[in-house]
Amino acid sequence: MIRPADFIEEKKRGREHAAEAIGRWVAAFMAGEVSDAQMAAWMMAVLWRGMTPAETAALTAAMAASGERLDLSSLPGPHLDKHSTGGVGDKVTLVVVPLLAALGLPVVKLSGHGLGHTGGTLDKLESIPGFRTRLEAEEAVAQARRIGLVVAGHSERLAPADARMYALRDVTATVDSVPLITASILSKKVAGGADAVVIDVKVGSGAFMTGEAEARRLAGSLVATGAHLGLAVHCVLTQMEQPLGRTVGNALEVREAIEALRGSAEPDLRACSEALAAEALLMAGMAADEEEARARVAGVWTKGAALERFARMVEAQGGDPRVVEEPERLELAPVQAELRAPAAGWLARLDARLVGEAVMALGAGRRREGDAVDHGVGAEVLAKVGQRVEAGQPLLRLRARDGEAAREAVRRVETGVRVAPVPAPSLAPVLGVVRNPTAS
Amino acid sequence: MIRPADFIEEKKRGREHAAEAIGRWVAAFMAGEVSDAQMAAWMMAVLWRGMTPAETAALTAAMAASGERLDLSSLPGPHLDKHSTGGVGDKVTLVVVPLLAALGLPVVKLSGHGLGHTGGTLDKLESIPGFRTRLEAEEAVAQARRIGLVVAGHSERLAPADARMYALRDVTATVDSVPLITASILSKKVAGGADAVVIDVKVGSGAFMTGEAEARRLAGSLVATGAHLGLAVHCVLTQMEQPLGRTVGNALEVREAIEALRGSAEPDLRACSEALAAEALLMAGMAADEEEARARVAGVWTKGAALERFARMVEAQGGDPRVVEEPERLELAPVQAELRAPAAGWLARLDARLVGEAVMALGAGRRREGDAVDHGVGAEVLAKVGQRVEAGQPLLRLRARDGEAAREAVRRVETGVRVAPVPAPSLAPVLGVVRNPTAS
Repeated sequence: MIRPADFIEEKKRGREHAAEAIGRWVAAFMAGEVSDAQMAAWMMAVLWRGMTPAETAALTAAMAASGERLDLSSLPGPHLDKHSTGGVGDKVTLVVVPLLAALGLPVVKLSGHGLGHTGGTLDKLESIPGFRTRLEAEEAVAQARRIGLVVAGHSERLAPADARMYALRDVTATVDSVPLITASILSKKVAGGADAVVIDVKVGSGAFMTGEAEARRLAGSLVATGAHLGLAVHCVLTQMEQPLGRTVGNALEVREAIEALRGSAEPDLRACSEALAAEALLMAGMAADEEEARARVAGVWTKGAALERFARMVEAQGGDPRVVEEPERLELAPVQAELRAPAAGWLARLDARLVGEAVMALGAGRRREGDAVDHGVGAEVLAKVGQRVEAGQPLLRLRARDGEAAREAVRRVETGVRVAPVPAPSLAPVLGVVRNPTAS
Repeated sequence: MIRPADFIEEKKRGREHAAEAIGRWVAAFMAGEVSDAQMAAWMMAVLWRGMTPAETAALTAAMAASGERLDLSSLPGPHLDKHSTGGVGDKVTLVVVPLLAALGLPVVKLSGHGLGHTGGTLDKLESIPGFRTRLEAEEAVAQARRIGLVVAGHSERLAPADARMYALRDVTATVDSVPLITASILSKKVAGGADAVVIDVKVGSGAFMTGEAEARRLAGSLVATGAHLGLAVHCVLTQMEQPLGRTVGNALEVREAIEALRGSAEPDLRACSEALAAEALLMAGMAADEEEARARVAGVWTKGAALERFARMVEAQGGDPRVVEEPERLELAPVQAELRAPAAGWLARLDARLVGEAVMALGAGRRREGDAVDHGVGAEVLAKVGQRVEAGQPLLRLRARDGEAAREAVRRVETGVRVAPVPAPSLAPVLGVVRNPTAS
């Protein structure tokens, strides 16, 4: 193998690495022959110079090969996974996975705990008393075979290179590189046994990608890299300027997901969920075109079959099954405080990032690995952008453990609210779909 | 202090760091609060984005402040130091320091051991039996006070941040950054107590800077950064396409330096030495202009006063004083092999880098810290570029421990020799002088 410094030099000079050299690089890193400092310098060079889809695919494959691979061969294919780049109020997984299972498409969804201002799907599910997210691989596969769906924690034995590289990126300002993000997302999907992935690329203040151009670049890279790997990837770009749906916070979002599966979904949550589920059907060859796919999703939604799947998953993973019928069993924090409209007019802005940060500050998320999570705190979104509001009308209701925390949360969000004297347009929930490989 | 990732982010985005932030960054690195990975990522970002002279000066000052500072207050000022970016056959220090001492300008020269294809001044001096290069600070200053010169090893207590950062740069492909090179060079000079530095910036295949444009950029950065620090810096750009002078190798170069101080210097060695010594006189205010400075240098050279200073230094540092009168006492390796002109014509190329690498391969240098050095091996340069040569005429004589090594050395250099059928120009030994601050 070439010397680590020479490999870094190659990228620093803007040259393309050979695929096998990237494979050796990641293997040497995991074997301790490439130091953290060398990996960090290389990742900064990648951030500077970029990588081709072929290089990104090689990196993805190498990271996926750094650990075990989940064996889904006992499940009927295609093996579909769903991923989100993370947003505020993003309970889409809790809706889409049951929908797909009800449509006959089994899903083994491997999730992470939340870090930063966006909550994690596992944290949300753990607000259901007894719900277990740590499943052994065999248990997860058996459950998917039996009831068609499982949402569980990502084992640290899958793509361990990603965990080590991500920890390094986090402290070396090398997070925001499209090829590194691409490899991080897809390596876990490949290791998780997927051969098709539908990805929710969120765009806006509350998302990792705040601008549509960079979100499209990431979507293009994900799709093109997937093509190199023989992995079908469809990306749906969705709105994240305001929180998604009606709630932010763990128990609140599980309640909302259950209500949505019952048929009373907020329009933006419904639109995002339908778009993602429709792309999954298309990838699975279960619909001829988008129109047919959307019709099938809408049909199963109406029948309540998805809610039934959700209930079976809760039961299978040890959760209290009564919450599905009585979501009010999910405990909420007792203190409420409201953010009110400063004037009459049209709600022009309700900043997703500020809401996310306020809810995290209330205790819904973790600053670092290992922090405890408060499932009962959160925010209810009482008005959406574009809506007519009166002066003093409540826009957001915060749920906290004490009055001071609630008032502090209101203050945090205040600067993110704007009421305009003229009609403000509502925000389109879905910004586009990226399906075909494009050079990045 | 700001989070390390935010500091790295600032440079990654191409923004200018505040001077005090750079100071805290280096201090935190030395305190273990900034990891090697973070420093490496930052250095790659610096390589990408560059630094202003103000930033480079702040980095230099911070690195100089990371350890002790040599106290030269008992010596008359200005406190002059000389530095070379490194070349093949570079024995200029052995000539210039005695010249300056003979001119009444005391010099405390702190050198390093060689690494890579260029030899180190300490390795050369250590070919003199008994010569000690490890001196305590007080001993070095006392010797300079007594006899006007000292050439000793750089203490690891001076600018320890540089040693740690250099070790990281070496393995992370972040060596070739003009601001990082500048700070590395100048931080050791500042910590060594200098207030004026004359720097030999070598240019060509055997130098760190192979092109004149990048060498001028480095010289401009050194001078401008020095100006920010109140440190006078003059740079002389000198030729390094072919080896300097008549020899390459430790004992061979000491022999050549002694012969040069006796008055029989190869023209290129003489020109480089005079130019550097003249700049030192100008910085010290000991000459009104370059012409007067050169005249003074030439005058003291002719009188043999510099050789006498060299002899006193050898004696003061425990070396066998007889080598000055009888340089043939310096033992050479027994086996010789010659590289001959492949055709009649004019010598158009005798590649400095290949000669340097061949001599290192014979054992004259070290691949890594701690390797043993063979003082007796080396190469004698028998023809200079531009000279008329006959077919079969010896161009280079290699000195080795055995025939196989000698023949291998000849083979290594062969591809670096070219004899042209038409007159080839000789190489100007001095390419220019950079004195005035220029923005880099």
